[in-house]
Amino acid sequence: MSFDRLQDKIDALGNPSVCGLDPLPEHIPPGVMQSHIAEKGETPEAAADAYFEFNRGLIDALYDIVPAVKPQSAFYELLGPRGAEALKRTAEYARSRGMYVILDAKRGDIGSTAQAYSEAYLGAVRIGASEYAPYNFDAITVNAYLGSDGVVPFLETANRNDKAVFVLAKTSNPSSGELQDIDIGGGRRVYTAVGDMAAALSSDSVGRRGFGRAGIVAGATYPAELRILRERLPHTFFLVPGYGAQGGGAGDVAGAFLRGGGAIVNSSRAIICAWKKTGAGGADYAEAARREALCMRGELRAAVMD
Amino acid sequence: MSFDRLQDKIDALGNPSVCGLDPLPEHIPPGVMQSHIAEKGETPEAAADAYFEFNRGLIDALYDIVPAVKPQSAFYELLGPRGAEALKRTAEYARSRGMYVILDAKRGDIGSTAQAYSEAYLGAVRIGASEYAPYNFDAITVNAYLGSDGVVPFLETANRNDKAVFVLAKTSNPSSGELQDIDIGGGRRVYTAVGDMAAALSSDSVGRRGFGRAGIVAGATYPAELRILRERLPHTFFLVPGYGAQGGGAGDVAGAFLRGGGAIVNSSRAIICAWKKTGAGGADYAEAARREALCMRGELRAAVMD
Repeated sequence: MSFDRLQDKIDALGNPSVCGLDPLPEHIPPGVMQSHIAEKGETPEAAADAYFEFNRGLIDALYDIVPAVKPQSAFYELLGPRGAEALKRTAEYARSRGMYVILDAKRGDIGSTAQAYSEAYLGAVRIGASEYAPYNFDAITVNAYLGSDGVVPFLETANRNDKAVFVLAKTSNPSSGELQDIDIGGGRRVYTAVGDMAAALSSDSVGRRGFGRAGIVAGATYPAELRILRERLPHTFFLVPGYGAQGGGAGDVAGAFLRGGGAIVNSSRAIICAWKKTGAGGADYAEAARREALCMRGELRAAVMD
Repeated sequence: MSFDRLQDKIDALGNPSVCGLDPLPEHIPPGVMQSHIAEKGETPEAAADAYFEFNRGLIDALYDIVPAVKPQSAFYELLGPRGAEALKRTAEYARSRGMYVILDAKRGDIGSTAQAYSEAYLGAVRIGASEYAPYNFDAITVNAYLGSDGVVPFLETANRNDKAVFVLAKTSNPSSGELQDIDIGGGRRVYTAVGDMAAALSSDSVGRRGFGRAGIVAGATYPAELRILRERLPHTFFLVPGYGAQGGGAGDVAGAFLRGGGAIVNSSRAIICAWKKTGAGGADYAEAARREALCMRGELRAAVMD
């Protein structure tokens, strides 16, 4: 099962973290960006090639110490069709290095539309008698505002292809409580109802490591809610954003873990933009990312695995 | 203002409807698909070219009677980077025919990520000293599960570029009530709270025709909730899915309108797959779509404009 592979990989590397690959033009070391602009002009082609080169360098620097990467779809979509190419190449390269690859896309739709999203990122499309798998991610983030109709098609595709899903329960941003914290009676809130839904929809797919195919997203910036969710959901894998740049620390994420497992903590800018703090102008971006990832690994080990 | 243009166009054509451009391989007339497969094989390139040819034919058949089109992003994403090309070409072609073009993408994220999504579809990205506008849609659908943090960046980009946003309030699917109908006290439910949020966030952008820049999505399949939302939100433009194939009729959508305006009703498969009912094997797909669109126009006029 998909989360068995993820938990095994986390254990093998002793590191429950995932690096967010969230490129923007200003995140790319100037030397990398300029070399592609020199070749292809100030075009989306040049930026997409720069994103991929940057990601490849990060993956090469991280794959033996970090189990997973999480590209954020928005930043690739911002380059249009060329960005989709960069996303595809990034997913393929990370997979070739043995990493678990999560697409952060927060898709949410129903029926044939949800099926199309899920097949796009976790499955394949049939064209004539041929099959084409556009991206082949290991997992995708999903928004459940539309109810279980918006989650079930993703789980069906995940089941067929041995992939996984992370449903947004409690997000890390300041206004996340506006809808998610609404008290719905019986000691429940909207975010616990979503967590319960994810657990209920995947109770029949619990794998060797103890987790169903529908994980949840729960932010490091709300440690009390993280603990509430963890207590309710003993068979749910947690993806935890909000660590580092957004303010969550290692102590804040501890509540997401269960016997030292069952969660993976994301950091994006702190790792991929670590080069901005070294004074070397970006030439050392891969080494700077590796140092930062090792530092995060140490913090997480101390807080949750020791 | 963006919704001034949309309402003017609706009035000029006497037709408050939008055609969903939701291609799947099985929706494309076999002759169109086969000609591209003959040229490029059973590849995403061939399918993407077939999608664009199909859409162009639909747009040519509809632009003088239907004010808007709404591509559903999922179906293009399912073809990977080639699908993004087909989406871009479709948006450009519809705009060249004077149509208002809504991207149904239901994006929802926060901070720089939400900004990236909004700039991708409503704005532009800066690469070096150049600007690149990947898609340039008139409006996009947005999911507010993350709270106002997930909506404000879209509205800021929409304001800068004179575009618009539709926030999902009450969706048309069977399970939409699981979260959206939760009673939050004071006579409010989650879907009315989202509607109120959209209205509050755009109360300072009400245009000549009386609508703020944040519209909402409210399904034809829930006519009672449509009326509740319309009563609460006199300055909000409504995008109404669920007409036709999903079961909503012209009488069901009447409650979304305000003095004959303020709403646009979507139909996708009933129009784009009308060719499947004529027995001509798809050669007449454009004419069949036009006939169906005229039939819908007549139904809507009788129910809401007369």
